[in-house]
Amino acid sequence: MTEQQTNEYPTKGYAAHAPDKPLEPCSLNRRGLRHDDVLIEISHCGICHSDLHTARNDWGGSRYPVVPGHEIVGYVRAVGEDVSGFAEGDRVAVGCMVDACMECDHCKQGLEQYCLNGGMTGTYNSKDRRDGTTTRGGYSDKIVVRKEFVLRIPDGMDMGAAAPLLCAGITTYSPLKQWKVGPGSKVAVVGLGGLGHMGVKLAAAMGAEVTVLTRTEDKMADAKALGAKDILLSTDREAMKAAANSFDMILNTIPVPHPVAHYMPLLKVDCAQVLVGVIGTLPEMHSGHFLGRRILTGSGIGGIAETQEMLDFCAEKNILPEIEMIAMQDVNEAYDRMEKSDVRYRFVIDMETLA
Amino acid sequence: MTEQQTNEYPTKGYAAHAPDKPLEPCSLNRRGLRHDDVLIEISHCGICHSDLHTARNDWGGSRYPVVPGHEIVGYVRAVGEDVSGFAEGDRVAVGCMVDACMECDHCKQGLEQYCLNGGMTGTYNSKDRRDGTTTRGGYSDKIVVRKEFVLRIPDGMDMGAAAPLLCAGITTYSPLKQWKVGPGSKVAVVGLGGLGHMGVKLAAAMGAEVTVLTRTEDKMADAKALGAKDILLSTDREAMKAAANSFDMILNTIPVPHPVAHYMPLLKVDCAQVLVGVIGTLPEMHSGHFLGRRILTGSGIGGIAETQEMLDFCAEKNILPEIEMIAMQDVNEAYDRMEKSDVRYRFVIDMETLA
Repeated sequence: MTEQQTNEYPTKGYAAHAPDKPLEPCSLNRRGLRHDDVLIEISHCGICHSDLHTARNDWGGSRYPVVPGHEIVGYVRAVGEDVSGFAEGDRVAVGCMVDACMECDHCKQGLEQYCLNGGMTGTYNSKDRRDGTTTRGGYSDKIVVRKEFVLRIPDGMDMGAAAPLLCAGITTYSPLKQWKVGPGSKVAVVGLGGLGHMGVKLAAAMGAEVTVLTRTEDKMADAKALGAKDILLSTDREAMKAAANSFDMILNTIPVPHPVAHYMPLLKVDCAQVLVGVIGTLPEMHSGHFLGRRILTGSGIGGIAETQEMLDFCAEKNILPEIEMIAMQDVNEAYDRMEKSDVRYRFVIDMETLA
Repeated sequence: MTEQQTNEYPTKGYAAHAPDKPLEPCSLNRRGLRHDDVLIEISHCGICHSDLHTARNDWGGSRYPVVPGHEIVGYVRAVGEDVSGFAEGDRVAVGCMVDACMECDHCKQGLEQYCLNGGMTGTYNSKDRRDGTTTRGGYSDKIVVRKEFVLRIPDGMDMGAAAPLLCAGITTYSPLKQWKVGPGSKVAVVGLGGLGHMGVKLAAAMGAEVTVLTRTEDKMADAKALGAKDILLSTDREAMKAAANSFDMILNTIPVPHPVAHYMPLLKVDCAQVLVGVIGTLPEMHSGHFLGRRILTGSGIGGIAETQEMLDFCAEKNILPEIEMIAMQDVNEAYDRMEKSDVRYRFVIDMETLA
């Protein structure tokens, strides 16, 4: 495969060229295979809120052209000379990161997402740690990724529906495991979008009793259909008071400023509210919110081994995200709808439509 | 002792009669012994910041006259008919609480301070859960307390110096134990007052490497004398950056608003900053401060069994607070000095001066 290691792979994709521009077709070259690389033909890519934020430079630091996408599934098409574990045709996946130092304490613990040497290399809009180029994501027909960051899609799992597991799935699975959710646990999920709906499914599959914290009763049917036992109206002062000290964990998936502190009294002693959304500035908090050893913390995706564990767990429990499949050409409309929360619960791009 | 159970005990004390009035001598009656009560002749009482805040109604809800004081040590003088474990002359202590339901999940776990049935009954300015009277604290020559809330001063421990252990000691000991501080731990202590100086001593005695986080270099000698290895200047941007991801716990003892968020990056993954001071409103925080599974939490005193464990630990390790002994008559001056942080590190009232 020496030949492949020197030749780049012409690739079709969709890119944002400026914060105020819609995504449009683009051409790019994927690097020739390094010794430890895997070439993947992308079959599907999920759409995450982060894609939209990066395309529009909402968080600053966007390096245009931005090719978003970090919920990638596809097939192995070629491997570098030192790759023995993957072969042509394997069903694989790539999530939010494509590299890390693999030598620091965090990487050694399987926490590559918190790599201490410059942080993880994101699947898009990051600087490749070997050649300094900008990484481009999964809104494209192929990608080249270091083998350690390639996951396996379990046999029998639907490829398209699996895509959102790579971000929405692991982002909710990891804190649920971290905080030891299982049979007997009472878990509250805040937000019922791409992440939240997976949080409900995963927590229920782990054996927990799940409550969806919401401002409106109209979420009841959806919450129950996903596996929640009930909803709790955060606007109902009496109900909130009655639910004080009753939850073992609050999984907060909302990605915009909202009254995080308001939920703290619901926690039992030594129990945590875990923020997984990029909220930005938190509304005012008081030291009293933390009394009774109540915990506020955050969590970002999960490590590679844990991501594989999550995929295997989902296969075993027959859990998949609820998705709406779209054509690549409809991505801008999908962004508009996502901004209005008009999606149940995750868009996935069928990459065959890019051809 | 039936006689004692019906007769009240005339008691001398010092009280605040209004938020803007200094403390002055007062007379009160301690209740006659209930079947499970212990009458204590108070020898010493420590002065806590909370005393001042309650005397001045800084937190609202003060019920005048306020007799502050919840770092109480003294001698048993009488016991109720169902009290078998204490006898006349025993060296005992009382901390921040004098009652709780003893039946809820928290009380059963030894977390009486978080009693789920109306909360713990504070040593002063609380409503007695049996007769509805307002509790009065240790700035007085005697007190009557339910036996379950009476601690034992270990043999050989100095009574006067022990007093601050009952609040400053347990408030710092409990979170250090909760977060498993021990040999090999790196602990940062924020604030070097009554609580902070005990945090340094206790963490060092547990085997941790202790760093004092401070804004000024002049704390160096004091920090080291208390057992810290070093100080870290929170104003030194480069030093703070170099110390990122290096602490197993941050014990934050500052009782006023300050940039709590600023310390979060110092924590290792899954490690906690524990707030033990009543700060009030926290300066602005971002969800990014919690990324990397960094934890913000709080802790209030400790349970009764844990308080006894702390007293025994201090006796074993020969640890005592650094105190300045004062006469009861000098309490108002002590308050003024405490407000200016002009005390190393805790005032203790010699209750013989009340006679």
